[in-house]
Amino acid sequence: MVASASRVLAPHLRSRIMTAADAAALIPSGANVGMSGFTGSGYPKLLPLALAERINAHHARGQKFKVSVWTGASTAPELDGALAKVDGIEMRLPYQSDPTCRKRINAGRMEYIDIHLSHVAQHVWFGFLGKLDVAIVEVAGIREDGSLIPSSSIGNNKTWLDLADKVILEVNAWQDIRLEGMHDVYYGTQLPPHRKPIPIVASGDRIGEQYLRCDPSKIVAIVETNLPDRNSAFSAPDEASQAIAEHILEFLGHEVKKGRLPPNLLPLQSGVGNVANAVMAGLEDGPFDNMTAYTEVLQDGMLSLLRKGKLAHASATALSLSPDGYDEFLRNLDFYRERILLRPQEISNHPEVIRRLGVIAMNGLIEADIYGNVNSTHITGTSIMNGIGGSGDFARNSYLSFFMTPSAAKGGKISCIVPMASHVDHTEHDVQVIVTEQGLADLRGLSPKQRAKVIIQNCAHPTFKPALKEYYKRALEYSPGLHTPHILDEALTFLPNWMANKAAREAWREDAVVQADVWR
Amino acid sequence: MVASASRVLAPHLRSRIMTAADAAALIPSGANVGMSGFTGSGYPKLLPLALAERINAHHARGQKFKVSVWTGASTAPELDGALAKVDGIEMRLPYQSDPTCRKRINAGRMEYIDIHLSHVAQHVWFGFLGKLDVAIVEVAGIREDGSLIPSSSIGNNKTWLDLADKVILEVNAWQDIRLEGMHDVYYGTQLPPHRKPIPIVASGDRIGEQYLRCDPSKIVAIVETNLPDRNSAFSAPDEASQAIAEHILEFLGHEVKKGRLPPNLLPLQSGVGNVANAVMAGLEDGPFDNMTAYTEVLQDGMLSLLRKGKLAHASATALSLSPDGYDEFLRNLDFYRERILLRPQEISNHPEVIRRLGVIAMNGLIEADIYGNVNSTHITGTSIMNGIGGSGDFARNSYLSFFMTPSAAKGGKISCIVPMASHVDHTEHDVQVIVTEQGLADLRGLSPKQRAKVIIQNCAHPTFKPALKEYYKRALEYSPGLHTPHILDEALTFLPNWMANKAAREAWREDAVVQADVWR
Repeated sequence: MVASASRVLAPHLRSRIMTAADAAALIPSGANVGMSGFTGSGYPKLLPLALAERINAHHARGQKFKVSVWTGASTAPELDGALAKVDGIEMRLPYQSDPTCRKRINAGRMEYIDIHLSHVAQHVWFGFLGKLDVAIVEVAGIREDGSLIPSSSIGNNKTWLDLADKVILEVNAWQDIRLEGMHDVYYGTQLPPHRKPIPIVASGDRIGEQYLRCDPSKIVAIVETNLPDRNSAFSAPDEASQAIAEHILEFLGHEVKKGRLPPNLLPLQSGVGNVANAVMAGLEDGPFDNMTAYTEVLQDGMLSLLRKGKLAHASATALSLSPDGYDEFLRNLDFYRERILLRPQEISNHPEVIRRLGVIAMNGLIEADIYGNVNSTHITGTSIMNGIGGSGDFARNSYLSFFMTPSAAKGGKISCIVPMASHVDHTEHDVQVIVTEQGLADLRGLSPKQRAKVIIQNCAHPTFKPALKEYYKRALEYSPGLHTPHILDEALTFLPNWMANKAAREAWREDAVVQADVWR
Repeated sequence: MVASASRVLAPHLRSRIMTAADAAALIPSGANVGMSGFTGSGYPKLLPLALAERINAHHARGQKFKVSVWTGASTAPELDGALAKVDGIEMRLPYQSDPTCRKRINAGRMEYIDIHLSHVAQHVWFGFLGKLDVAIVEVAGIREDGSLIPSSSIGNNKTWLDLADKVILEVNAWQDIRLEGMHDVYYGTQLPPHRKPIPIVASGDRIGEQYLRCDPSKIVAIVETNLPDRNSAFSAPDEASQAIAEHILEFLGHEVKKGRLPPNLLPLQSGVGNVANAVMAGLEDGPFDNMTAYTEVLQDGMLSLLRKGKLAHASATALSLSPDGYDEFLRNLDFYRERILLRPQEISNHPEVIRRLGVIAMNGLIEADIYGNVNSTHITGTSIMNGIGGSGDFARNSYLSFFMTPSAAKGGKISCIVPMASHVDHTEHDVQVIVTEQGLADLRGLSPKQRAKVIIQNCAHPTFKPALKEYYKRALEYSPGLHTPHILDEALTFLPNWMANKAAREAWREDAVVQADVWR
């Protein structure tokens, strides 16, 4: 890389430029390593690979070598995948979505801690997770004065840079330098009892600085890269996602009509993934203008809302765009820079701000039970999928909290509405609206038994509706208490057993066929 | 009652004084009624009884008559008990602890909604729970200008007075008039998108007014009373409570030593009940001075800490004192008025303030599972006990979150540590420390499997420890996933079945006898 093209403009830091392998050699086994990266953007691209090689070489010599990896959220195969493949991760936190990591965690060969995204930074500041040894942070550039131009995500980078003993920077020339000015890094956080109000009263409020600070004496290495973010494509909205989006739009329209929401709604939060993206796409054709977003990730759907003028402003901590979305973003970066703010995730997900703004939260789920308890993280109550992410930060503190899912998974074989959630991430106290392609259950002001009726009736897939009704009816008869009726020795196994009972299933087949047009 | 002794000083309101029976006649069937009252203090004493009589008379004539009852939190037999006895409650929310209500709810004959205490007021403001028809609020007096001197609790009174169509006031001469000046009623709340930061940065900050406002045209009745608050006695701290308190004190001391807490700690929150009260008593002998409290109820333990100068200040929404505690309070009311602030519960329990102050939360539980999920509300997952109260507001947003319980209940027959919680109110993401008389489990920075080991080892009662170990070991072998190992068709029934298996129990008896000195 020629010096003239270098984005390391601080003269006093140029001597720290080195290869990824040399930089990786500075990371000792047993280190707690804070890495940048949030939903596949802004993660270091070379260091983790070099570190994986270093770990592999140690293992080949029969030497132990593992690190604990703390991030903003999910990263990419070059980070989580590479380090998990060489069995290099002792402990991983928080949200992650890498298949190799997932496999190792669920095989009991890697430890994982699932923390609310808004809690991570403060728990590190409190000293609850141990000392942060090394920070590895991707930036878009280093300015003459040593300040750092953040990359396509901020996540926990401010905290990592502030607290780590050693800092390694990846300066990625692939990141468009015009990102400069899109960030708002708040330096007003404190430890209790010295905390002050976070002064955001609207999603677009600037309260911080455009750059990340870093004590230059801590910077032990700088690695120059030119590599793209993961930027995976979204699948086109399918019929189920579109139906979910329609139910939500209709409901929001109803709330506006009733005077319970202003005509431009309240700031939107939208979780990661295809369904969330489809709901945003649905809002393009909705009647709501001049909307805003206060969310953690900005996906293609929101970008399009901005472009079309439906969304006036979006605050997030990360971009998570498809390749096409990223192209569009670059083509009109000057337009987007005026309308997007990227903040540290302790601010994007801050309960104080979410509650003050009255965010409308929309998050996916794995299973919801008939009483409105939501499992966002576990398959069969035992295997982690990705983690809770920011869904708890938003659901608990939102004005309105939606949880959405197709009513059945695995080609219709598994019901996403179950008698009792096999793991609970969002309790009955935090879940207001459940939406499937079948319909919407408005749980506000309903007792558990009233919830059960409306969830089964409106949200369950026709294949499973009879079984859920049967469970509920039997629970009313046999439950020890009738506030939240359950049959404890069947609650978690009733549906799988019912599925196994072919005869019972056959009996309901006709009903399923009749309703086939609403479900594929 | 002679006019000269009357506390209704506003001349324009004196004409509204009437009997409770006349006032109750103004409440129609089907009404949503917001009543004052929080943990047995400041609830209306005559109106609910008169309303119960009115309901009873209707029922005797074969006419339907029910109301929905919204409060601050739990009240007393004259309110919840009386109305439940005549089958007069359609829907009850939020926290309540009346045995008659509980029986009806769990028999499926009364609807109950369990809402975070910080959510109640805003959900009513949002219009999510329907229209508030009538407010029945106890006050200590009505001033000449019509402003109201609040009673021994504030709870949701501001919201009830602001939003109800009709207001009925009980002016209770039993409440010491010197309560005047102890309240801080914040009138700066707004609906999104107009909300501003709540300007509290220390537990003692005054941000509001000393009096409640009420549009005089809405006041349809005033009833004068002279009746005591419930003021039930606390049981003397038993051995288990003392042991729990000791574990917590030792832990807090350790955290101070490690620099993770200041020497005067951070503001304390303490849940209702005997164990919580005992922990406060334990702090009297602890090394911490100049402490503060930001909590919902002020029980005897905290009063004593104030008196002894260990606690510099306490903010709450209600007093909940024993008769002896109340006498002490009255004897030194001028002393306490300078050190206690009573606020609306939307402020005492506000996530924004709790997180900012870095509150140390201490709450009870019904059962905790080996992975740190906590059930605060349900017996056998189906019968409601009291409700979640403010435990969620505090646990999620606290600096440190303790959950405490004796390790076994019902004379040692039931383990409070279980394989899987039969109902989840606080998820693994929100529970940091679990304490029983056996010991303390510090869950910070631990993965689920690491948590299981420390919870079983440190917190389980010796009688049940072998069974829990056995479950965990078998789960490691048979669980489909090993992130949170479970055997789903045994998870909720393993311990009861194990208890039923006499032979297995006998085998462990010896171990139990050996450890009998730590448990009665």
